[in-house]
Amino acid sequence: MLLSKLPLGAAALRVAQRRGAAALCSGALSDAAVLDKLASGQMAFHKLEAELGDPVRAMRLRREHLASTFGAGAHADAIRALPSDALDAAGFYGQVDGACCENVIGYVPLPVGTIGPYKIDGKAVYVPMATTEGALVASTHRGARAISASGGATTELLADGMTRAPALAMPSLKAAAELKRWLEDPASLDELNLAFKATSRFGRLLAVKVGIAGKYAHVRFKCFTGDAMGMNMVSKGVNKVVESILEKYPGTQLLGLSGNMCTDKKPSAINWIDGRGKSVAAEAILPASVVASVLKTTPAAVARLSVHKNLIGSALAGSIGGQNAHASNILTAIYLAAGQDPAQNVESSTCLTLCEEVPAATPGGESSLYVSCMMPSIEVGTVGGGTALAAQAACLGIMGVKGAGETPGANSQQLAKIVCASVMAGELSLLAALSVNHLVSAHMALGRRDRK
Amino acid sequence: MLLSKLPLGAAALRVAQRRGAAALCSGALSDAAVLDKLASGQMAFHKLEAELGDPVRAMRLRREHLASTFGAGAHADAIRALPSDALDAAGFYGQVDGACCENVIGYVPLPVGTIGPYKIDGKAVYVPMATTEGALVASTHRGARAISASGGATTELLADGMTRAPALAMPSLKAAAELKRWLEDPASLDELNLAFKATSRFGRLLAVKVGIAGKYAHVRFKCFTGDAMGMNMVSKGVNKVVESILEKYPGTQLLGLSGNMCTDKKPSAINWIDGRGKSVAAEAILPASVVASVLKTTPAAVARLSVHKNLIGSALAGSIGGQNAHASNILTAIYLAAGQDPAQNVESSTCLTLCEEVPAATPGGESSLYVSCMMPSIEVGTVGGGTALAAQAACLGIMGVKGAGETPGANSQQLAKIVCASVMAGELSLLAALSVNHLVSAHMALGRRDRK
Amino acid sequence: MLLSKLPLGAAALRVAQRRGAAALCSGALSDAAVLDKLASGQMAFHKLEAELGDPVRAMRLRREHLASTFGAGAHADAIRALPSDALDAAGFYGQVDGACCENVIGYVPLPVGTIGPYKIDGKAVYVPMATTEGALVASTHRGARAISASGGATTELLADGMTRAPALAMPSLKAAAELKRWLEDPASLDELNLAFKATSRFGRLLAVKVGIAGKYAHVRFKCFTGDAMGMNMVSKGVNKVVESILEKYPGTQLLGLSGNMCTDKKPSAINWIDGRGKSVAAEAILPASVVASVLKTTPAAVARLSVHKNLIGSALAGSIGGQNAHASNILTAIYLAAGQDPAQNVESSTCLTLCEEVPAATPGGESSLYVSCMMPSIEVGTVGGGTALAAQAACLGIMGVKGAGETPGANSQQLAKIVCASVMAGELSLLAALSVNHLVSAHMALGRRDRK
Amino acid sequence: MLLSKLPLGAAALRVAQRRGAAALCSGALSDAAVLDKLASGQMAFHKLEAELGDPVRAMRLRREHLASTFGAGAHADAIRALPSDALDAAGFYGQVDGACCENVIGYVPLPVGTIGPYKIDGKAVYVPMATTEGALVASTHRGARAISASGGATTELLADGMTRAPALAMPSLKAAAELKRWLEDPASLDELNLAFKATSRFGRLLAVKVGIAGKYAHVRFKCFTGDAMGMNMVSKGVNKVVESILEKYPGTQLLGLSGNMCTDKKPSAINWIDGRGKSVAAEAILPASVVASVLKTTPAAVARLSVHKNLIGSALAGSIGGQNAHASNILTAIYLAAGQDPAQNVESSTCLTLCEEVPAATPGGESSLYVSCMMPSIEVGTVGGGTALAAQAACLGIMGVKGAGETPGANSQQLAKIVCASVMAGELSLLAALSVNHLVSAHMALGRRDRK
Repeated sequence: MLLSKLPLGAAALRVAQRRGAAALCSGALSDAAVLDKLASGQMAFHKLEAELGDPVRAMRLRREHLASTFGAGAHADAIRALPSDALDAAGFYGQVDGACCENVIGYVPLPVGTIGPYKIDGKAVYVPMATTEGALVASTHRGARAISASGGATTELLADGMTRAPALAMPSLKAAAELKRWLEDPASLDELNLAFKATSRFGRLLAVKVGIAGKYAHVRFKCFTGDAMGMNMVSKGVNKVVESILEKYPGTQLLGLSGNMCTDKKPSAINWIDGRGKSVAAEAILPASVVASVLKTTPAAVARLSVHKNLIGSALAGSIGGQNAHASNILTAIYLAAGQDPAQNVESSTCLTLCEEVPAATPGGESSLYVSCMMPSIEVGTVGGGTALAAQAACLGIMGVKGAGETPGANSQQLAKIVCASVMAGELSLLAALSVNHLVSAHMALGRRDRK
Repeated sequence: MLLSKLPLGAAALRVAQRRGAAALCSGALSDAAVLDKLASGQMAFHKLEAELGDPVRAMRLRREHLASTFGAGAHADAIRALPSDALDAAGFYGQVDGACCENVIGYVPLPVGTIGPYKIDGKAVYVPMATTEGALVASTHRGARAISASGGATTELLADGMTRAPALAMPSLKAAAELKRWLEDPASLDELNLAFKATSRFGRLLAVKVGIAGKYAHVRFKCFTGDAMGMNMVSKGVNKVVESILEKYPGTQLLGLSGNMCTDKKPSAINWIDGRGKSVAAEAILPASVVASVLKTTPAAVARLSVHKNLIGSALAGSIGGQNAHASNILTAIYLAAGQDPAQNVESSTCLTLCEEVPAATPGGESSLYVSCMMPSIEVGTVGGGTALAAQAACLGIMGVKGAGETPGANSQQLAKIVCASVMAGELSLLAALSVNHLVSAHMALGRRDRK
Repeated sequence: MLLSKLPLGAAALRVAQRRGAAALCSGALSDAAVLDKLASGQMAFHKLEAELGDPVRAMRLRREHLASTFGAGAHADAIRALPSDALDAAGFYGQVDGACCENVIGYVPLPVGTIGPYKIDGKAVYVPMATTEGALVASTHRGARAISASGGATTELLADGMTRAPALAMPSLKAAAELKRWLEDPASLDELNLAFKATSRFGRLLAVKVGIAGKYAHVRFKCFTGDAMGMNMVSKGVNKVVESILEKYPGTQLLGLSGNMCTDKKPSAINWIDGRGKSVAAEAILPASVVASVLKTTPAAVARLSVHKNLIGSALAGSIGGQNAHASNILTAIYLAAGQDPAQNVESSTCLTLCEEVPAATPGGESSLYVSCMMPSIEVGTVGGGTALAAQAACLGIMGVKGAGETPGANSQQLAKIVCASVMAGELSLLAALSVNHLVSAHMALGRRDRK
Repeated sequence: MLLSKLPLGAAALRVAQRRGAAALCSGALSDAAVLDKLASGQMAFHKLEAELGDPVRAMRLRREHLASTFGAGAHADAIRALPSDALDAAGFYGQVDGACCENVIGYVPLPVGTIGPYKIDGKAVYVPMATTEGALVASTHRGARAISASGGATTELLADGMTRAPALAMPSLKAAAELKRWLEDPASLDELNLAFKATSRFGRLLAVKVGIAGKYAHVRFKCFTGDAMGMNMVSKGVNKVVESILEKYPGTQLLGLSGNMCTDKKPSAINWIDGRGKSVAAEAILPASVVASVLKTTPAAVARLSVHKNLIGSALAGSIGGQNAHASNILTAIYLAAGQDPAQNVESSTCLTLCEEVPAATPGGESSLYVSCMMPSIEVGTVGGGTALAAQAACLGIMGVKGAGETPGANSQQLAKIVCASVMAGELSLLAALSVNHLVSAHMALGRRDRK
């Protein structure tokens, strides 16, 4: 996310510039000397990497400093218990530094399970999921088995575009309305793209939508971003476009590059209705015999529960985009495995799950279960951000979507389809289980630990 | 999450029972023999742990099987590139097996950064955050520094209760209305708790709310769950209560133990309005001088942006509970570090952020910035689930909230307060940065990798 | 509505006090003299009734003044074309003055149609509807006929309570949280009712819910209000309670007696979830034969459409409480006939309509259509406001719910049930028509005027 | 509204056709004979107009029948108390019959007040309001006076288009996605308009948006409809377009001509975000001196309350589009006076009201109050429906917007602007009153009747 990356401002810039020099100085200090400086405040806790020029050592000394700050006792033990080495430490902390995390003190390992082979659009896929939620992988795997045994999942990409919406203060309502008319006119797109495309090779402005609140204009730009999730690309491009607006409409003031009509990492109807990132849907049709043998239930039971839970229950709860059973579970696990941003699951996991019984086509034939998931805001990329880390890149590789695709956007779109199909597998399996209500009893038999 | 844990049903139960026996048989097989059986389908991919009785070996052979399934090439390289050893492998995979993940093939390490010392309710706290989002930790740290320099954050627990809402089919609207009247009558609580408390030491039913859709009743139970996040505890207790309802009201049918009025891992107004888990608010007051020196902006600029972004922008986007800048970023990072369920951030991260300029109290004095975050649905626990894993437990220990508190619920409530105060720090820092718009330029100077 | 009544402030008060005196003076003036004074600005347009002491003459002279202001032409013709006399003018304008409307220049007559006899809870009812929407009454009548032929509609009152939510500024979050704990404690209700009940004979505080935004508390009071719709009663009572809060919590400041968490005349999830006014549900079961003969369709067709339109279509549209076909049409027409506040239909008309096919109970038997409407926020009264006008009182009389019931609240609750049952009739009829799609063709055959 | 007009189906059609003949027969019957036939069921209650060929006589005999059905007592008295004659009865009931209402038994007179002269876009306007809500007209008038004294209101039309969204079942998700791509392609618009424009002189398809739920496509057509509100025009045109889709995509099935993504008369985010009918905004700037003299408050007090009530309070209530104080009050009263559809105020009255204090431009100068209302879904027309009735047409005439404008759409757009500016006046006045809290006291002094 661009925004949280930037508060560092000029100071961070200066730090970055003097890294080489700093490393020369502080790199020569002994560990004890560095710890002394940290304790006395002469060296800043958050500048260790820059000062030492060695992210592994910086991490290690930060831990020691923290442990000694706590003194003896549970807190100090805790900091020492956090994993830090193993791995290719130099590689890991080197990649993390300056790109993925600051004030690093170690890492948490998330177990990765996998479902598959799952037949999606005719191809067998293994999908890695990082989670500590017991039974989630097993359940999703079961759904994938049932769907694969029924011919597999079919997916469709419905739309693809990342958004960013700055807030502008115009001199008057009249000026704001004029701006809206100009920006929303398809004929303006070429001119806007002159500015936008100056900042990126793949980025392209697709559409503009302007919300008006008096003289304030919230301008939602929608852009194609290739195989990147695209928040950064979009922010840079939109910043350029805003500059051109400020020139064209004197008296305009930028309130903030993000004015929340984007909407990033918050629930919003606009993402549900207009989509953000990839809009994808998936479907499958399962014969009653497979539903019985793999899922231990019937098409009618699943369809009935789906209406009462996903549609009516969610309506009673006042939900927009929550017409599903647990899409967030599956999506979040794949996001974590694949180096995506789990904070975006707020909107990425909105999903409408639909289950219907399909009567037998011929007398005496068997009925089927039609199942579908529609997810309008899957925000994924296969380059940039967490995808660069070795483990996460490996998970992308397992799915065959690592890095930039031959056709820009092909890999990230395929990843979005895998996410949607996997969500459908997870939805199906949970609905099946709930429909026969062997939930709690099964759980108790397994004697799993409390919580969740 | 209870629900995804349970689809395994009777089969899983049987597997669990014969584990010992299975281990005796398959444990004696050579690796090659096991791989042969996997390739020929004689041994099931997802039953390796149960068959071999050795989770580390199971994980290793599953990787080899997968790599050979892929044959030579990028996919096989990918599976080999996923980290798997290092750590205390026996400990890690032993804890994971049967509790946190299935079909395990390795792990992804998430870097952990830390903010602090952050003064929350008078006490200095270090808060670990697991993230691959560059600058997030640094930015939150900056906000925490500014608040700490201004006297610190104050928090309040507003409510505490986990929910689960089964869907029941009643014989008629009349019967559904009767059920509603009985369940919502405070006088019924004792009787309901007779059933509920049979399943748990700490759990206690607090309130019941019934949604009606014709003859269908969606019953939302709210329960105290001690230091557990509580979904499992609640599900078990509610299952008991449902059994007693089925007895008391013949003709009643359980459609599903979760009917989505809960609402778990989906956006919903009911959680925003009634809360789920811990409802917490935090506030701080920062003198203009601190806002200037640490945050490089003014109280007026932050307050103005907050109204236009968090309130107006989110209103234009049709957001319920998204009245904030990026609460999900901070919350998700702490959840991941502390073994919480990141799939719940959908509702956990709903937040109303409020910033106001406070005029100087005396002529010539300095103005201040009032900042507050209200988060009604923080779903956290310090026992159960992912909190049991060593690294995650260490992060809880760093915050001083590991395990069950002396007073049941004290540790999980304290964790919720730390989450809310940290979110406030992150909100403040991002709003400050946006208000002076050195976002994109700073980013470009740092030359960070594309995406986000 | 209390709020719009009050902006008049002190000036209005003084006017009211000097009415008698004013009438003595201005009443003696000739029409020409009054018109002169109006034209010269010596007499205020909006004070004519008070000045003249004769609402009919005031209305008449206001029209003449307006017509002459416009001069000759279309505008002046328009003002003259607006109905003003007929009726019992003295009675009508006398009742209107000071209670229902200001600056009166005449009236618009709304045609009143009626449906019935409609069997609701075993009793035949005629329901008057005031509308200019062609076919609405006929369609609703058809639905009522079908339901009556199937045994009639059954209704249930689920809750009853009017709300008002002042916004308070507290000295700190701590103070706001304390206030919340105290107000939401059931044990505080008696003390709060001491203040509340001082202002009303029937009013009684039922529950309190406090929303927190930093140090600001939005306090939603829910009250029983007898047969009055109750906004006024509640506002007066809550004002007293607020006074007692201000005394008990020094430093508290009232920002506004209505802070929108009420929520009056605006869409809101809180009304959908917690209800406002009367929460009512209705159901009916229609044999397939009646569905065929009266509604020209089948249970399966209606049920299928209802899922796709009311549940899925509304979900795609991002609707909270709009899970229906056209509840607002029927409700608004009854509100207008019965002197209710049509501006409240925003929340009053939220409705979840559910249609299901019920299989035949016995082999060879006929299937049925189960239909139900749940409406959580029907805001109606049978005393006060527009119910006092002669025509509207007549409509209440036709339904047998005029004035205060023997049991306080009985009449207004019965009115709410009639509204809900009538909505169900209208829903059923429209869904039936849409399900066989003879919509547009029928319309074109009838050759009705364009629009609607 | 087209939909409720159509359930009559074939039966209604036949009735319409034989009207002439029926009139010949039944017209000759005596009143007593008709009443006998009604009592015995030989003549249908709802067919009186068609049978008698005289709407006034039909109305009169229906009343008598109803009164005698009730027998003596309160119900019969009530039916007799409902106004029925006066007016130009033949004209009134003649216009109503077959177009505005069925089963007619009389009318309710709604008092019409007026505000003005209100300076909107430089022109003085009188705005009629039909309401029984005491003080509403007076309060709105006060707001209009304050704004007019400050230079008047400025308005902007932001968009104009009526929508209708049929639900289609496609053979598969693939087919649904194909349909979506084709319909949303701007290049398809000409082809679609070939079908659409065949049904109307002014209608023109502007845009198409397709929602996907598995293989089901909800297609939202947006159309220009001249001076008609346009629901009927759109429904007819869309019906034609659907016919062409059914031909082009064999296997497609129409589930319903309205699938709720329209969204008509239900709360929905899609209308809030994409608009329906006219999207309009208004603004005004009031010097502090006018705020003080007319509104008895200060810019700062109004601005502060507006943030806490309209933005924060509505956020806590979970409101989408309810960011206002009481827009529905003013809008509904104008709709009723001007023959608009009050059932549409559910979405028409969504409104974001924004108030800000503007500091003095020069030292020692006075501050100002900036006020604005944005209303995305004002659904109005100046031809068709209730606008044809004499009284309602008069009210349109008073505003200078009666009938079709010279430029198609000009009159209905001007009406929408008047609505928005009037809402702003009402918002301002109520917020001012609340900000100084003389609400309840003023009310009590006036001693108005309970309720509202």
